[in-house]
Amino acid sequence: MKKRWMVCTGCSRRVPFRYDGGICDCGGALLVRYDLEEVKHNLSRERLKERAATMWRYHELLPLKHEDSIVSLGEGWTPLVRLERWEQKLNLGGIWVKREEQNPTGSFKARGFSAAISLQQEQGTARVAVNSNGNAASALAAYAARAGMEGFVFIPRDCPGVMVEEAMQYGARTCLVDGLIHDAGRIIQDGAEEMGWVSTGTAKEPGRVEGKKTMGLELAEQLGWQLPDAVIYPTGGGSGLIGIWKALCELKELGWVHGELPRLISVQERGCTPIVDAMEAGAEEVTPSEDVTCANPTGIRVPQPPAGKLILSILRKTGGTAVAVTAEEISAAGNTLRGEGISVSPEGAAVWAGLLRLLDRGHVHKGERVVLFNTAHALKYLPWQSPTPPPVITSFDHYRRLLKNAVATQQPMGEFRTKESSFEG
Amino acid sequence: MKKRWMVCTGCSRRVPFRYDGGICDCGGALLVRYDLEEVKHNLSRERLKERAATMWRYHELLPLKHEDSIVSLGEGWTPLVRLERWEQKLNLGGIWVKREEQNPTGSFKARGFSAAISLQQEQGTARVAVNSNGNAASALAAYAARAGMEGFVFIPRDCPGVMVEEAMQYGARTCLVDGLIHDAGRIIQDGAEEMGWVSTGTAKEPGRVEGKKTMGLELAEQLGWQLPDAVIYPTGGGSGLIGIWKALCELKELGWVHGELPRLISVQERGCTPIVDAMEAGAEEVTPSEDVTCANPTGIRVPQPPAGKLILSILRKTGGTAVAVTAEEISAAGNTLRGEGISVSPEGAAVWAGLLRLLDRGHVHKGERVVLFNTAHALKYLPWQSPTPPPVITSFDHYRRLLKNAVATQQPMGEFRTKESSFEG
Ligand SMILES: Cc1ncc(COP(=O)(O)O)c(C=O)c1O
Ligand SMILES: Cc1ncc(COP(=O)(O)O)c(C=O)c1O
Ligand SMILES: [Zn+2]
Ligand SMILES: [Zn+2]
Repeated sequence: MKKRWMVCTGCSRRVPFRYDGGICDCGGALLVRYDLEEVKHNLSRERLKERAATMWRYHELLPLKHEDSIVSLGEGWTPLVRLERWEQKLNLGGIWVKREEQNPTGSFKARGFSAAISLQQEQGTARVAVNSNGNAASALAAYAARAGMEGFVFIPRDCPGVMVEEAMQYGARTCLVDGLIHDAGRIIQDGAEEMGWVSTGTAKEPGRVEGKKTMGLELAEQLGWQLPDAVIYPTGGGSGLIGIWKALCELKELGWVHGELPRLISVQERGCTPIVDAMEAGAEEVTPSEDVTCANPTGIRVPQPPAGKLILSILRKTGGTAVAVTAEEISAAGNTLRGEGISVSPEGAAVWAGLLRLLDRGHVHKGERVVLFNTAHALKYLPWQSPTPPPVITSFDHYRRLLKNAVATQQPMGEFRTKESSFEG
Repeated sequence: MKKRWMVCTGCSRRVPFRYDGGICDCGGALLVRYDLEEVKHNLSRERLKERAATMWRYHELLPLKHEDSIVSLGEGWTPLVRLERWEQKLNLGGIWVKREEQNPTGSFKARGFSAAISLQQEQGTARVAVNSNGNAASALAAYAARAGMEGFVFIPRDCPGVMVEEAMQYGARTCLVDGLIHDAGRIIQDGAEEMGWVSTGTAKEPGRVEGKKTMGLELAEQLGWQLPDAVIYPTGGGSGLIGIWKALCELKELGWVHGELPRLISVQERGCTPIVDAMEAGAEEVTPSEDVTCANPTGIRVPQPPAGKLILSILRKTGGTAVAVTAEEISAAGNTLRGEGISVSPEGAAVWAGLLRLLDRGHVHKGERVVLFNTAHALKYLPWQSPTPPPVITSFDHYRRLLKNAVATQQPMGEFRTKESSFEG
């Protein structure tokens, strides 16, 4: 059986592995640790080559006790596509786009939920919940369906309708929330005990970061273990970035990569840039963004990232930075990448816009090798309106009232009834 | 340099490789052949294990002269997901779904166009065109963009709007056609000389079938070279099915698989079932469907499949069959598969509905191992209406008139102008 425990990035405390371990009492982020000496002994870069083309090829570095709890829909090992024409135009040594939109449910969120739902499977959870800007909701819905769990998702009301529709199609009980992603999180917190919800929100459990970590493992392996100079990632809650950084640290510890870590760089959209603001202020902590004015209701609109301190330290430690881009830049960047045949999301387009800014500012230099992430599929952002939209709620009390009514009248509430629900009312 | 030539499945004639080789003078389908003895000598199942996770891992079995003409967006090597719960319910030895929706552009069409556009790259083509029920159009658009060619697509006007939007986003000049897929094909034929269009429509060139062939190669490799008992595929133009069959034949010739080929089974939607009709009539040729009444404007709505005779012979030779399913069955099957976390297209849902029918009829038996194909992503079928819809045309003359006008007034015509167009007017 696998040895796994957790260490706090704030106070360095070592604690036993916890399925609900996200944030330490000191406010630091708890991250999973493994016996890397043992991994080194049992696994080599050479042996990896024969593994299946999913993120579970790295199962020794993922937190499950046994492989038989894996809940998989074929996630990970996404293509790393090289943009040769743009390398020449921009005078760079390499530009790769990691096409995370080719994951199940069309985004990198599949990785986090494959790991998180597998962990919940391991401990026999029946009901899982998440607050999400959309992509995480559809991923939770799909993996819960695959595992036979009940999924509950809470999404800001202005989220692109396609993702909402998707979550419903996979059978999750779906609610829109009159507020932002942290308001949705509060509803889950308020209802967790009464509803038996296990939250899989950002920094609520260890699976999400560990699953996303596989993006970092893959980029190293796909580049033949030669790390790039910079990695640019669209940052919302930040677990994508944290995961990639953690991956690269573990690879160094394993001795599978050498030299400096790449500069890790966050991109956010102007109008909600808590990470950029803190970096520019030289602050150690992230101050929640108060006025959220960005144009796009995307996954990078997260005014209160739970592990902000860790994100800042990663950006600084690796010599990276954080950049804000405008809605116009995002739109233009989307045209550029689609003109290369890539179905880029606004978040992925923001990354391209970020690259252009970084070149402008001299933060990325001639001849450097950069890896960009397209985190989701363009099609998920079409302004679709569901014919059976889910309810919009303001609080858990509100939710409870609507649910009681739905159960009493035997009406669906934010779900397609593809299977019998276990609500008692 | 690779040896490649073509053989007619009708008259068995051997002819030199032709970039425009699709149908022989005798009406039979021309298929590419390789020196398989040489492939056997240079490649083994063992060596494949170390290859990249794209369809180009099989480049020795693909028609390019050199690997440097490859136009790739990270296509192929899609997950083969096992549905354990349903195996138990249905008493089958194995049910796998090949998740083709995880390809670039969200469908298996990416494979055909990666190969077809690579071949056009090899011969220096500037303008490629396709008639399509939607998925092929968006795939052509993406690969043309990637290759720096101009793409032109012609789609029946009732095609789901998302696919139309996608084709425009990738920068293809997009037109809706007042008619069905063969009407769209006629427009390309009529305008080919004047416009310099190279058609990549079904059976117009060898790349499409060869690219789709990789689905068959992959299913064999992913099942550890143990072929299943049956493969069920949604059949429109038929090159998916032909490709899979060709793959399995080549694998047998290579000695990499043994025993009987699986029964290959076509599924079509009631209201447009030329293949099912011919099978049931015991006919040798496919009679075009006259009254097209099926509810879904999908990729399996093809009343005049160009290589019908070959399709029938494949179904018969392998002991397979063809089944028609209703729109209601497709809808119910969609719910079932989405309830397993799979983002299934109507075509993929038709396959599941087909499986249920085949079990009912005793054509698939207890304990058998079946592979199903989900050929596209559910999200592509949402009834989206583009804010800038492309023109609807009735003929090539009509097209020419609109184009002249668009060029004269410097207006876009069915494309997002992401780059300078080379029209002279
Ligand atoms: C497409 C997309 N990109 C980026 C992000 C931000 O990821 P993270 O929360 O890990 O920072 C999200 C989160 O919802 C997302 O959906
Ligand atoms: C999703 C989907 N499935 C199946 C088909 C039928 O494939 P083929 O034309 O190779 O028979 C198509 C063709 O458009 C399609 O788009
Ligand atoms: Zn601590
Ligand atoms: Zn012939």
